[in-house]
Amino acid sequence: MTREVRGVAAAPGVALGPVKWLASAPATSPNDAPGSDPEAEIARAEAAFKTVAARYAAQASAATGPAADILFMTSALAEDPSLLDQVRVGITIGGPTAHSVTEAVEHFAEQLKALGGMMAERASDLRDVGQRVVAELLGVDPPGIPDSAEPFVLAAQDLAPADTVTLDPAQVVGLLTVAGGPTSHTAILAKALGIPAVVAAPGAVDIAEGTVVVLDGGTGSVEIDPDERRREEVRAERTRQADAPTGPGRTADGHAVPLLANVGSVADARLAVELGAEGVGLFRTEFLFLGRNSAPTVEEQTRQYAEIFAALGDRPITVRTLDAGSDKPLPFLNLPEEENPALGVRGLRLSNVNEGTLLDQLAAIEAAAQESGASVKVMAPMVATVDEAHYFAGRAREAGLETRGVMIEIPAAAIRSAHLGAEVDFFSIGTNDLSQYLFGADRMSSAVAALHDPWQPALAATIAMVVEGATANGVKVGVCGESASHPEFACVLVGLGVETLSMAPRSLAGVRAALAGVTLDQCRAAAQAVLSARTAADAAAAARAALGRAG
Amino acid sequence: MTREVRGVAAAPGVALGPVKWLASAPATSPNDAPGSDPEAEIARAEAAFKTVAARYAAQASAATGPAADILFMTSALAEDPSLLDQVRVGITIGGPTAHSVTEAVEHFAEQLKALGGMMAERASDLRDVGQRVVAELLGVDPPGIPDSAEPFVLAAQDLAPADTVTLDPAQVVGLLTVAGGPTSHTAILAKALGIPAVVAAPGAVDIAEGTVVVLDGGTGSVEIDPDERRREEVRAERTRQADAPTGPGRTADGHAVPLLANVGSVADARLAVELGAEGVGLFRTEFLFLGRNSAPTVEEQTRQYAEIFAALGDRPITVRTLDAGSDKPLPFLNLPEEENPALGVRGLRLSNVNEGTLLDQLAAIEAAAQESGASVKVMAPMVATVDEAHYFAGRAREAGLETRGVMIEIPAAAIRSAHLGAEVDFFSIGTNDLSQYLFGADRMSSAVAALHDPWQPALAATIAMVVEGATANGVKVGVCGESASHPEFACVLVGLGVETLSMAPRSLAGVRAALAGVTLDQCRAAAQAVLSARTAADAAAAARAALGRAG
Repeated sequence: MTREVRGVAAAPGVALGPVKWLASAPATSPNDAPGSDPEAEIARAEAAFKTVAARYAAQASAATGPAADILFMTSALAEDPSLLDQVRVGITIGGPTAHSVTEAVEHFAEQLKALGGMMAERASDLRDVGQRVVAELLGVDPPGIPDSAEPFVLAAQDLAPADTVTLDPAQVVGLLTVAGGPTSHTAILAKALGIPAVVAAPGAVDIAEGTVVVLDGGTGSVEIDPDERRREEVRAERTRQADAPTGPGRTADGHAVPLLANVGSVADARLAVELGAEGVGLFRTEFLFLGRNSAPTVEEQTRQYAEIFAALGDRPITVRTLDAGSDKPLPFLNLPEEENPALGVRGLRLSNVNEGTLLDQLAAIEAAAQESGASVKVMAPMVATVDEAHYFAGRAREAGLETRGVMIEIPAAAIRSAHLGAEVDFFSIGTNDLSQYLFGADRMSSAVAALHDPWQPALAATIAMVVEGATANGVKVGVCGESASHPEFACVLVGLGVETLSMAPRSLAGVRAALAGVTLDQCRAAAQAVLSARTAADAAAAARAALGRAG
Repeated sequence: MTREVRGVAAAPGVALGPVKWLASAPATSPNDAPGSDPEAEIARAEAAFKTVAARYAAQASAATGPAADILFMTSALAEDPSLLDQVRVGITIGGPTAHSVTEAVEHFAEQLKALGGMMAERASDLRDVGQRVVAELLGVDPPGIPDSAEPFVLAAQDLAPADTVTLDPAQVVGLLTVAGGPTSHTAILAKALGIPAVVAAPGAVDIAEGTVVVLDGGTGSVEIDPDERRREEVRAERTRQADAPTGPGRTADGHAVPLLANVGSVADARLAVELGAEGVGLFRTEFLFLGRNSAPTVEEQTRQYAEIFAALGDRPITVRTLDAGSDKPLPFLNLPEEENPALGVRGLRLSNVNEGTLLDQLAAIEAAAQESGASVKVMAPMVATVDEAHYFAGRAREAGLETRGVMIEIPAAAIRSAHLGAEVDFFSIGTNDLSQYLFGADRMSSAVAALHDPWQPALAATIAMVVEGATANGVKVGVCGESASHPEFACVLVGLGVETLSMAPRSLAGVRAALAGVTLDQCRAAAQAVLSARTAADAAAAARAALGRAG
C-alpha cells in the first residue's frame, strides 16, 4: 500500500508531481567582513530595504483580494523607521552589513512574537523581508520558489504571503505546508489562485526532495510515490475537469444552483465575470478601510462601490457591511485590545460603539446602487440575536436598501434562524466563522485545525437548521464560506437545501464540474449520509459513496 | 415612575439599601518629603510589602473555591522581586517612600496592561496591592469597604478580589459595579458569597452616595429611590425567602430536582453539605494543579480527592478532569501563547499534547473512589465531537471508572448530542462556556456582556436540543453553569427537562425556594414561553408570567 501523510484540506483539487522544498535564506554571520565605510554601508542597506519594499508594493498592486492587503502591509513593514534605526546602529558599531540586517530583523521579530497573536504572525512576514534584503545586499537570488522546468508540488514549513503570491499555477501544481490552518492566509491565497493545498501536515517533513506525490486538497491526503495506475487515474481526472462545462451552475438533472463569487476589489470582480460567476455572493468592503487613519467619506465609498457594481454588469451583488474588530483593527475605530478578539466587538457589534460608520456605509451602498442601477443586496456580519437582525434591517430600510439580509456565522443565529428569518429577506451562511464558534476552535490556529473539517457532521446539521428556519419564512439561503468551494461538500450543501454557493472565483470551475456530475437526489442522499454519520471520517466516506465517487 | 439604571444580572437575589461607594486609595506625590535614611526606608517598604502579602495569604487560607486561588496569586504579586527592585531604585535616587511604591506599581501595571488579556486583568490586582502597601506606609486605613452600622449596597468602578472576599454579607447586601461582566471574577465571588450583584452598569456612576436603591441581581435592574410601597414589597419578599424550606429540591407538586453544588476544595465541600446540597454536580480539580511547576503525582491527587469525597459522605459526586489551557495556564504544560485562548487548546484538547496528565488524573480519581467507597462519576470539559467523547469514555473505562460523561459546553456537542449520548452515561451542560461559543462573545468581556443574558432564547433552545439528545439515549442531563443558580431560570431549566441543577453552595437556598413555589406544569409553560419568545426581554417577561411572578 502506498504510504500516506495526512494534513488538513485547505484548497480543493488533486495535484500530481514531485515535491520541491522552498529554498532557504542566505545565512549571515557576525564574522563576515564589515564594509570599510559605515556611512556608505548604511546607505546601501537603506537602498536594499527600499528595493524590497518597492517589490512588495508592486506585487500588491498586481495582486487582488486579500493577497493585495497582505502584501501592502508587508511593504510597510520593510520601511519601518525603527527597524532601519536598529540596522544603522548595528553598522555604526562595526557590524557586517548583511548580518546587521539579520540581527535587527530578529530583534524586532522576537518583540512581535512576544506580543502574541496577530502581531506574532507578522514576525514571519518580517523575517521574509529580512531574508530578501539580505539576498539583495549579498547579490544572490532571493529565497523562495525553486525554479524547475517541470511542474511540482511546493513544500514548506509555512509560506510567507510573498511566496504564495508569486506562485505560477502552471508551475506550482500543489501546496503542502507543515504548519498553518485550513483558513489561514496561505489557504485563502492558495484557493484564490486555484492551487490545491494541504496544510498542518507534520508528517510532510519526512518527504524527500523530488519524491512524487498525489496531493488531494479536498481530503487532506498526500500519497507518497503512488504507482503508475494511480498516477494515470489522477491525470485522467484532471483532463475530465478541464473539459468541464462552463455556464450557470446546475446538477446533472438540471436543478439550478447559481454559482457566485466572493470579491474584495474591482480586479476580483472582473476575474469573477471572466470565470463565469453568476453574481457576487459576498462583496467584502474592508479594502476601503484598511491602512487608513480616518473612515472614507460617503462620496469616496459611493465612487468605489459604483465602480465594482459596474464591473459586474447586471449580475446581482450582495454587499457585506464592514467586518472589522480587534482582530482586524482599523486605526480610526480606536478599539481597545481584547483577550479573545474573535469573541469580542466585531462586525455589526461595532455599531454599539460607532454607529456612524455603519450609517455612512449604508448610505454609500444605496447611492452607488442608484447610480449604477445594479441589483444590490446588503447584509451584516456577526449577527447573533433577533434584536440585532431587527436593528440592522431597520437601518438598511431607512437608507433605502430594499433587500436586506444577515450573515449566519454565529451558532445562536443558526439555532434561532426561524425567528431571525422574520426580520430579513435572506441568509448567507459564513461557514468559516460558524465552524470557529460551533467547535470553539480558532480558525487561524493549526493546533485545533482538525475541528474545521467541513465533513464534521455538526456543521451540516447546523446548516440544515438554517435552511429549515429560512424555508419557514420564505427567506433565501446561500453559503459564502470556504466550504462552498469544496467540490464534494458543495454537492452536500445543495442536498441540504442551500440555494446559492459563493466562493473564490478560481474555485468556480471545480464546483461547477462537480455539480454537473451528480443529480439532486444524489446530493440529497449525500446530505442525509452526512447528517446521520457518527464522525467526520464516516461522513466523508458516506457522502462520496452517495455521490458515486471513489472512497 | 422610579428612575432605573440597567446593568447585567451577575448574582441572583434582590437587595434594598443605601449605596455606598468603595473608599478610594491614599494619594502620594513626588513632592512628599523623602525619608532621611534611604536604607531604613527601603527596609520599611519591604516590610510593608511583606505585611500586605501575608494578609492576602491569610485571606487565601480562610477563603474557599475560586476566591482562594485569586488571593493566593495576588499574594505572590506582592512579593515579586522585580517590583521590589524598582521600589529600591526609586528610594535610592531620593524619592519619597510611599510615592516610590506608587510609581513602581504604576510602571509594572502599565507593562501588564500592554500585554493585554489576562495579564491586563492582573494590573488592577497589582494596583490594589500598591494601594494597600501605601496605606500601610502612611499608617492610614487601607482603601476598601466603607464602614457602616446600616447594611448597604456597595458600588464601585470594579472590585479587586481582595475587596470582594472581605465582604460581610450581613453588612454588604448588594454589589453594583460600573465595569465587569456577568461571569467575571467579581460575579463568581459574589455568587459564592450569596450577595446579589449587578455589573456592567455604566449609568451607576451618577448614583450619589447614600441614595437608596432596589438592586435585582436576577434581572440587572437598579431602581433608584423607590417609594415606600416598593421598599415594603422587597422586605416582604426577603422574609418569604428566609422562611423557605430546606431539604431536597422539589417543585410545589413534588417533582424532585436534586440540587447539587459546584465545589473546588474541601472547605467548599463542607459548606455544600452544611447548606443542604444533595451531592456535587461539578468538582473542579484545577486547585491541585495551580501555581505548580510540575503535575501532582497520582498519590498526591488520590489523597486530596479522597479527602473531598469523605467530606461528602454518601452523596454522589461528579469530578471534572483538568480544565486548563492558555487562558488558565499551568507552567508544567508549557503551552504556547494563543491569539484567542478561549478558542484554543483547552480542556480535553490538552490530551493531544499531554495525555499523561489525563491518564494520571483518571487513575487517581478511581483510586480515591475505591478508597472512600464514594459514588463517583467523571466527566471531561471541552468536548466537541463524537470522536472526542469516544476517546474520553474509553480512557475512563480503562481506568475502571463506571459512570462517564461529558460537559456540553461547545455548540457542536449540543447539536450532536443524540450521537454523543451513545458514547457516555450523562451530560452536564456548562452554560457559561456554552453561551460564550453560542453567541461568539467572550464571557469575561463587559463589551459583549448583554449576549450572556440567560434569557437569550437561543440558550434555552440549545438546552432543549441537549435534553432531546439525552432522552433519545437514556442519558442523564444536568446543568452546572451560572444559569442554574438563577432562581427563575432554574425553573425554566426544569421545564426544559433538565434533571439536576448544580451551583455555588450559597445559591442553593434561593433556587430551592423558587422551585418549591411553582409546579412542574408552570415550569414547562415557562420553558415553552422562552422557546417561542422573540427576544431576551420578551422571554424573561413571558417566563415570569408563566411562573406567576410579577413582571
